[in-house]
Amino acid sequence: MNKNRLVIGETELKSRLFLGTGRYPNPYIQEKAIEASGADVLTFALRRVNLNAPNEDAILQHFEGKQFTYLPNTSGAKNAEEAIRIARLARASGLSNWIKVEISVSEKTLLPDPIETLKTTEQLANEGFVVLPYTSDDPVLCKRLEEAGAAAVMPGGSPIGTGLGILNPYNISLIVEEANVPIIVDAGLGSARDVVEAMQLGVDGVLLNTAVAKAKDPVKMAEAMKLAIEAGRLSYMAGRIAKKRYATASSGLESLTLNE
Amino acid sequence: MNKNRLVIGETELKSRLFLGTGRYPNPYIQEKAIEASGADVLTFALRRVNLNAPNEDAILQHFEGKQFTYLPNTSGAKNAEEAIRIARLARASGLSNWIKVEISVSEKTLLPDPIETLKTTEQLANEGFVVLPYTSDDPVLCKRLEEAGAAAVMPGGSPIGTGLGILNPYNISLIVEEANVPIIVDAGLGSARDVVEAMQLGVDGVLLNTAVAKAKDPVKMAEAMKLAIEAGRLSYMAGRIAKKRYATASSGLESLTLNE
Amino acid sequence: MNKNRLVIGETELKSRLFLGTGRYPNPYIQEKAIEASGADVLTFALRRVNLNAPNEDAILQHFEGKQFTYLPNTSGAKNAEEAIRIARLARASGLSNWIKVEISVSEKTLLPDPIETLKTTEQLANEGFVVLPYTSDDPVLCKRLEEAGAAAVMPGGSPIGTGLGILNPYNISLIVEEANVPIIVDAGLGSARDVVEAMQLGVDGVLLNTAVAKAKDPVKMAEAMKLAIEAGRLSYMAGRIAKKRYATASSGLESLTLNE
Amino acid sequence: MNKNRLVIGETELKSRLFLGTGRYPNPYIQEKAIEASGADVLTFALRRVNLNAPNEDAILQHFEGKQFTYLPNTSGAKNAEEAIRIARLARASGLSNWIKVEISVSEKTLLPDPIETLKTTEQLANEGFVVLPYTSDDPVLCKRLEEAGAAAVMPGGSPIGTGLGILNPYNISLIVEEANVPIIVDAGLGSARDVVEAMQLGVDGVLLNTAVAKAKDPVKMAEAMKLAIEAGRLSYMAGRIAKKRYATASSGLESLTLNE
Repeated sequence: MNKNRLVIGETELKSRLFLGTGRYPNPYIQEKAIEASGADVLTFALRRVNLNAPNEDAILQHFEGKQFTYLPNTSGAKNAEEAIRIARLARASGLSNWIKVEISVSEKTLLPDPIETLKTTEQLANEGFVVLPYTSDDPVLCKRLEEAGAAAVMPGGSPIGTGLGILNPYNISLIVEEANVPIIVDAGLGSARDVVEAMQLGVDGVLLNTAVAKAKDPVKMAEAMKLAIEAGRLSYMAGRIAKKRYATASSGLESLTLNE
Repeated sequence: MNKNRLVIGETELKSRLFLGTGRYPNPYIQEKAIEASGADVLTFALRRVNLNAPNEDAILQHFEGKQFTYLPNTSGAKNAEEAIRIARLARASGLSNWIKVEISVSEKTLLPDPIETLKTTEQLANEGFVVLPYTSDDPVLCKRLEEAGAAAVMPGGSPIGTGLGILNPYNISLIVEEANVPIIVDAGLGSARDVVEAMQLGVDGVLLNTAVAKAKDPVKMAEAMKLAIEAGRLSYMAGRIAKKRYATASSGLESLTLNE
Repeated sequence: MNKNRLVIGETELKSRLFLGTGRYPNPYIQEKAIEASGADVLTFALRRVNLNAPNEDAILQHFEGKQFTYLPNTSGAKNAEEAIRIARLARASGLSNWIKVEISVSEKTLLPDPIETLKTTEQLANEGFVVLPYTSDDPVLCKRLEEAGAAAVMPGGSPIGTGLGILNPYNISLIVEEANVPIIVDAGLGSARDVVEAMQLGVDGVLLNTAVAKAKDPVKMAEAMKLAIEAGRLSYMAGRIAKKRYATASSGLESLTLNE
Repeated sequence: MNKNRLVIGETELKSRLFLGTGRYPNPYIQEKAIEASGADVLTFALRRVNLNAPNEDAILQHFEGKQFTYLPNTSGAKNAEEAIRIARLARASGLSNWIKVEISVSEKTLLPDPIETLKTTEQLANEGFVVLPYTSDDPVLCKRLEEAGAAAVMPGGSPIGTGLGILNPYNISLIVEEANVPIIVDAGLGSARDVVEAMQLGVDGVLLNTAVAKAKDPVKMAEAMKLAIEAGRLSYMAGRIAKKRYATASSGLESLTLNE
């Protein structure tokens, strides 16, 4: 799934950066950061949107006239039933038929529940949603989610908002190796370095929120992340040198040609 | 030394990427990679240049008309005496008064000799050279090199050409903390990730050669590195979030507002 | 679950090292390694044992007269049905009512299937088995396995036989934090260092096989592992110093008392 | 230098653990911890000893009747001159002709000065001392110290008292590869895991102080460290399995032999 184009559902995305809309200091900085990031896909918790009148919602109204893909998420849901209900409400309101499945029972870690996430993914895919489940980095579970109909699979780097980066790069690379749908690393990334690392592991994109929104300068960090996505993708495609134990002279084996 | 401008000697550099000119597949790719990298400073082993007629040299002639700063290095020198002789020859030929001190006795690791490097730096600084010593990441030694007159100090991430990245990020950050001259990470970097990591540690620039020249696609890798330098610098300046052990919801503490 | 005694099911174990019986160069070395390890619990694939006459089996007969707890595993099973059948056969043959659930569909990674593992654990616990499931290091899944009736939970450090050690120490520490049953790290450990690291994360024990059986000197490695278990456990209980960024003199702040 | 016996100067040591005597809660715990550690070599700052009457000194008097090798250190010295003076005083007082060279100018990091350390080592070796210099992990510098007459070389894992462990295992392994004298990792180790890691890199011994003295239970930690030294040494000598990317079944390739 490391093709040149990134297509999810039937939508081709220009940017490989998915951005969350929560936790910015104010709507003005939020808007500027979204702009600087170059993101095509915006994600937000449905509980923050007034679904009866989404066009008037404080979060969404700034983006009028721009062509974003909205990826509402089901955060706050504690099981499949709640998540499915949220997804259906989102679609019924005309907001989007994309849904990020996010189901957690632990306030402390917000880690996703594998069983409920799989059940929800299967059900919503059957109902015609474009489903992107947030999951642990368990390679078998990620494969199961793909088989259940996920349009893309989103393993976490580390728990949401921690900034701990990719705790297990090995697992992410295994997931990429086996995948037939796009892999988007979601959660835990903290800096441009983490984003470049993800892209060099061969993932198709990255979802960020806290790392941008709570940086000291969110707009500058959004710009950094945009460049990091591109740098990481290019570095992956350019084919890095192999690691070696011992040195090799940069200047090759040429003989000394000093003219004294 | 993390100011907005990077000044070495009396030269202000626009790019924070220093690029080596050795080991490219052919002169055409070398030229394209140099262009894609955006580098201002080019480094090369003096033994590869015909000092009697530098303008006709195969390596240097491509760059006519462009404004590069040349940073010849003393690689191949096994002690201070040899290194000093190479530096004087370089300046006498009109090539440059910048010199990268590189002194090693081990063919296997090419690691720099601390004693000879310090002696050479002191001598050449006294003679008016702009001296950039390649050194281990020993923080005390780096400080000593600064005191000896180095215009910038260049600790290695790992041995030359290994692609092992920054083996000791802690030491690099200590070196940055104490420095009053620019710190350029030199040697061992293998990918865009390594470059971003270096920049996020607060270094002022990065010197690359093998990572670009021996990548499968050197020109694409040069472009990746150019973006990585910028991404890492911006991420450093934007102020990343603190790392935490436990999660924080991206969507804040807002109550659930589903309108059923 | 970091109490002083390790009790699984109703059995108190003296050793925190669980040892696999496969892949040794020969039965003599196998026996010596088991002895040197001090292990109380031995694990083996049921498919390697002749269940009609377990007492005559080549693998088990060496241990007569010693008090081992046998932990047969279901490796080779590709789903819950197969695993449950193997477990029932094991118990029916009088071998043991302990069972390590091990279900994988991937020959390449042998990683455990989360859904089938959970289903099997629940079923076998209901049937009165002492169930120890091998699982990924997904903290939510580990909790679910405990809730399903697992007597102990066995997250993998890395894939079986790889020697990659603990790829995600953070997850292991989260699992320990939340657990009400013993946590045994199973799979992927390669050396004494990995074992000590596991124990310092607070786990209750470690299961080893390849690291011992395929070491150059399996008996010596078994002895190393026995000491490593104890060293790691003691270090965990002794309460290590906090990590700090800057130095503190070992010799305190005493004034210089040289008597010249 | 990974022979079966550890000989420094002309003394054969039974234990590979060197222990510092500073920072313990009280003399009773200090004594018990020293005993539990099994250490043969004790190190301490000379400034803490009354050199006119060493036998009556509060630190040394507890060890009467036991056969320790005393390794006084020069901590507090800021240059070669001061360090040499301390060493001569120590020998003149009859305390020991062993000396740990420790010279630092930075209160913040206490990192050793490479130039002054090398100069001191050379001088004291010429005067017949058994010299053990504390140094950075710069492989070239370590080789230089050996050439200057060091009886053993002691690279730091990380700054004194930080508990950060071995920041650059690669460098330590290079140092071991090249050495013809014993290599003792000194400084920065925090737990049994760090000690085992050091030993598995092939070092000949480890010097600890803060990790033991400031643990919550220093005596228990001393015991852990004693076991860790042995576990790490055995694991190193037993020859660990190679790391692999993919799994290998512990139970081999035997066919399924279930007898239904």
